[in-house]
Amino acid sequence: MEELNILSLLIILFSAWLGGSAAKKLGYPAILGELIIGILLGPALLGIMETSEMINVLAEVGIILLMVYIGMEINFRDLGKASWPGLLAAIGGFIVPFVLGYYSIIYFGGTQMAAIFVAIAVAVTSLATKSRILVDLKLLNTRIAYVLMAGALISDTLALVIFAGIVSYVDAGSIDTLGLVWVAGKAILFFVFTALAGIYLLPLLGKFLMKSNLTSRTLHFTLILIIVLAFSELAEIAGLHSILGAFMAGLFIRDGVFNRQISKDINHIFHDISIGFLAPIFFVSAGFNVTLEVFQTDLLMLIVVTLVAMVGKILGTAIFYLPSGYGWREGIAVGTGMNGRGAVEIIIAGIGLQMGIITNEIFSILVFMAIFTTLTVPLFLTWTTTWLRNRNELVHQESRGGYIILGANPLGLYMAKQLQQKDDDVIIIDANREMVAEAKKQGFNSMYGNILKEETMEDAKAIEKGTFIGLTGNSEINFLAAQLADDAFYIPNKIVLVSPSESGTDVDMLDKINATSLFANKTELKPWAAKISNGNFEEKTQTVEEEITTREWVKQHKDDKNSILPFFIINSEGIKRPFHYNDTIDEGEKVVYLE
Amino acid sequence: MEELNILSLLIILFSAWLGGSAAKKLGYPAILGELIIGILLGPALLGIMETSEMINVLAEVGIILLMVYIGMEINFRDLGKASWPGLLAAIGGFIVPFVLGYYSIIYFGGTQMAAIFVAIAVAVTSLATKSRILVDLKLLNTRIAYVLMAGALISDTLALVIFAGIVSYVDAGSIDTLGLVWVAGKAILFFVFTALAGIYLLPLLGKFLMKSNLTSRTLHFTLILIIVLAFSELAEIAGLHSILGAFMAGLFIRDGVFNRQISKDINHIFHDISIGFLAPIFFVSAGFNVTLEVFQTDLLMLIVVTLVAMVGKILGTAIFYLPSGYGWREGIAVGTGMNGRGAVEIIIAGIGLQMGIITNEIFSILVFMAIFTTLTVPLFLTWTTTWLRNRNELVHQESRGGYIILGANPLGLYMAKQLQQKDDDVIIIDANREMVAEAKKQGFNSMYGNILKEETMEDAKAIEKGTFIGLTGNSEINFLAAQLADDAFYIPNKIVLVSPSESGTDVDMLDKINATSLFANKTELKPWAAKISNGNFEEKTQTVEEEITTREWVKQHKDDKNSILPFFIINSEGIKRPFHYNDTIDEGEKVVYLE
Repeated sequence: MEELNILSLLIILFSAWLGGSAAKKLGYPAILGELIIGILLGPALLGIMETSEMINVLAEVGIILLMVYIGMEINFRDLGKASWPGLLAAIGGFIVPFVLGYYSIIYFGGTQMAAIFVAIAVAVTSLATKSRILVDLKLLNTRIAYVLMAGALISDTLALVIFAGIVSYVDAGSIDTLGLVWVAGKAILFFVFTALAGIYLLPLLGKFLMKSNLTSRTLHFTLILIIVLAFSELAEIAGLHSILGAFMAGLFIRDGVFNRQISKDINHIFHDISIGFLAPIFFVSAGFNVTLEVFQTDLLMLIVVTLVAMVGKILGTAIFYLPSGYGWREGIAVGTGMNGRGAVEIIIAGIGLQMGIITNEIFSILVFMAIFTTLTVPLFLTWTTTWLRNRNELVHQESRGGYIILGANPLGLYMAKQLQQKDDDVIIIDANREMVAEAKKQGFNSMYGNILKEETMEDAKAIEKGTFIGLTGNSEINFLAAQLADDAFYIPNKIVLVSPSESGTDVDMLDKINATSLFANKTELKPWAAKISNGNFEEKTQTVEEEITTREWVKQHKDDKNSILPFFIINSEGIKRPFHYNDTIDEGEKVVYLE
Repeated sequence: MEELNILSLLIILFSAWLGGSAAKKLGYPAILGELIIGILLGPALLGIMETSEMINVLAEVGIILLMVYIGMEINFRDLGKASWPGLLAAIGGFIVPFVLGYYSIIYFGGTQMAAIFVAIAVAVTSLATKSRILVDLKLLNTRIAYVLMAGALISDTLALVIFAGIVSYVDAGSIDTLGLVWVAGKAILFFVFTALAGIYLLPLLGKFLMKSNLTSRTLHFTLILIIVLAFSELAEIAGLHSILGAFMAGLFIRDGVFNRQISKDINHIFHDISIGFLAPIFFVSAGFNVTLEVFQTDLLMLIVVTLVAMVGKILGTAIFYLPSGYGWREGIAVGTGMNGRGAVEIIIAGIGLQMGIITNEIFSILVFMAIFTTLTVPLFLTWTTTWLRNRNELVHQESRGGYIILGANPLGLYMAKQLQQKDDDVIIIDANREMVAEAKKQGFNSMYGNILKEETMEDAKAIEKGTFIGLTGNSEINFLAAQLADDAFYIPNKIVLVSPSESGTDVDMLDKINATSLFANKTELKPWAAKISNGNFEEKTQTVEEEITTREWVKQHKDDKNSILPFFIINSEGIKRPFHYNDTIDEGEKVVYLE
């Protein structure tokens, strides 16, 4: 097999893994390490590796699959919810650097086409940068995180659409009015056709497969690959780039199209092949095309493009964010969070290089710009969010809110009463009709059903809920329901009551489905249910003076193990959350326990 | 992206899927359809497609990944158990066609090297042909199936080792004695080194990852890819072919090396990427290299090679099988079952073509030989097994035998008593110490433990057992245990008692884990347990006169639903199996029910 150079594949994959892991250790996205390793190995520095046909083929398949994955991760529902502030941030953070980037390149004497490519590259926002940093800075569930997520998604979509326009324009060559209409018409036809196919044909295929009882994961994977390739080919026929087809295909492979379990598996496969195998080959090999000479020959342009990217993004976001009414400080924080550049930028730059629209020098500048801007994100975001936090302006908001509580017993109702903040954000499910009726009478939003049936979860709008609490005396039902909530409805938080039994559900099992145990301890339901329904308990509050994990708190109160039940944690804003194993109580937060 | 021809990729994948599905519909392995579609599309017939650099790169990555998967599927334990008859069949089915194939090519004036390549190709046995045909012909759990499986595995391993020797020999070029020792030495060093690395280093890595709590599927996938590439590169350094490295790597990625759940996921990923995406590209493109002219120019050689492959394989197997004492008829049945050629043969032929050892004509002959021999398998195997069946010589044997019964209640004990055939093949687990003690006193093989802990299953040797029966009154524990048995211990049959409750485990859920409901009906444990412990029941037997599914049987006895409990099916050999939902009662089999 002459075409396959195993050694260079091994070196690329191994060093991509090294670089990626190192970057992640330092709190950066893996792509940063992959780009840097590529520059190191490539002609620019060590000169060990260079591009080859094999690398290009694999890298390009990697990009196609990565675009499918990126498309899959975009949820229309989330985009819809993002509405006002997210849209503002996305547009501001896109337009301002776009315009500045465009004129910078024109100023340096670049072609119009090159200027537009650079403009898109500086305007893009990285999707990959987010999650890890948000966790590190404890920003999940803040409004900023929410806006960031939506902003990045909108800006990516925007970038790809504009990019589509340019590619078809470039490919067209001669530019009379009629030609332009033809070019635009083809592009629009492509989007209309793929959207229609995605909305109407794909679900039909899904239904057909479900009806025919064809549930093979591999078959679904093959069929989806065929669809992806068909969309990509359509994009090329329409004069667009194949990655747009892949992206569109990814957008429509989602909830409800195929069996939920299979959708999840397919998502995993695309994730693993692209991010775990082929996409790193692309990012490392992107580094092979970088030249360090730009630091001498084009230093000014490098500095200007990087500054334009940073200042344009941060200020643009902040200015356009003003109408949201959330203040300019939050706008700046959002801007610093959106300042990274990632996969989409490098892909667009790479295509520009391949099409001969941008030079090797500009490509190198764009890669360095991606590296520098991404480097700033954790730093700047730490500063701006500490600033907001100190001013007490860091607003919390759940991206998926509300609770599903399983069990209309006294404990479940008591829990619901505490968690309820507005109408309908807590729903209680039970398979006992009488208990459901009683709960309804007491004014609770309660529903009859078998929680282990997907329909029941569906009816309870599980897909929008943020937390599932399993509170029946049967630990196994609690666990199985949490598993379903995780598997099919992606509910982020699953809290499960585990009974102190020798057999059955064990706390070890909770890890597998990312669930955690309610009350941070094995607990018998009945005695507490009796105490609560008899009113035979006191609610006490303890303010925590020093950050402590919930499990430590339970350990400290070990002696009272059977007489107290830690129920809630109340944060400084007065918001309650259930007391569970995987949590940390911050200084100043209060623990409410029953005695 | 000039390197990526989306359209040809789309055509190949789509037609591979069409061909593969059509073949599978007709009861053949997908590879058959893929080869034929390749010949159709390629220069031989329609001339729409031809090989390209892109196709070759993807096809070769596909082969590497496929070899990893094939390696993963080989279980040393199974090989060990196969012992005598499997080994005999494998060796006979290998050596005889090998020798005949070698001399045929020499006779036709081929080079020695070409003769050896053809010899390996006719000697190989297809792994892929098995399972589907065995199911269709109801051969699973027969001794033949068992021998076939082992035989194919051994013959594949044999083929690859001999192939390794040849490749290093060819690469070496000049052939003095010292050179030959050097070549052989390097090859042996490779096998010793990879075996040692596989046995000692890989589990260390696995332990390290588990200890560091690194449970990311993607990380494991990347690391395993790196190991695969490293092994492949080592193979090349040792003068062998890279696919051997991939195969060796696959062999050692198995039970106990990594977390069980992750091992399973990784196995799925390799399966889906290779069989669902890249390997079909190889098989279709193999068809591109086929020329139909051999039917005119080399018809005699084609006929001879095909005949040698068939007759050599079937007779060779049958003759060498005689010492097993299972009779020559069973030997011939095994031979017809092993007559297919599949992935490994086409891969070896492809490499021979690429290395210039065999001509296009011989390659074409080998592809047609694969097609013809594979076509015979269902036909011949139907004949031979019907023949055996009519003579009452079709012997049943479980590849994984024995039962784990959860629940030491009266029903569980009664079940165990019926199923027990020899010592230790049934184990009863319960989390109630007293019930376990009582069961032990009555002479049952019983064990105390929480079935939902992996350790308990491990202690019960779940990995060797063929059937799990969940027989507690708690349907959810039964279900969760079956899920664990499926997920982590690959127990093929899972039978679960489902209680008639409005909430909790529902029969729909069983499908997901390939489980089935005990007694083919929702059943309350307590009343029957009481009846059995009081001896307040009668055991009745009904002989079935016409093939019927268990669910139909239950429907027919609907009126007695609460008063009878279908317990066992006894086949003509007197072997009992539990009565469950997904089963068919053959003519002449007896249903034992309690009344």
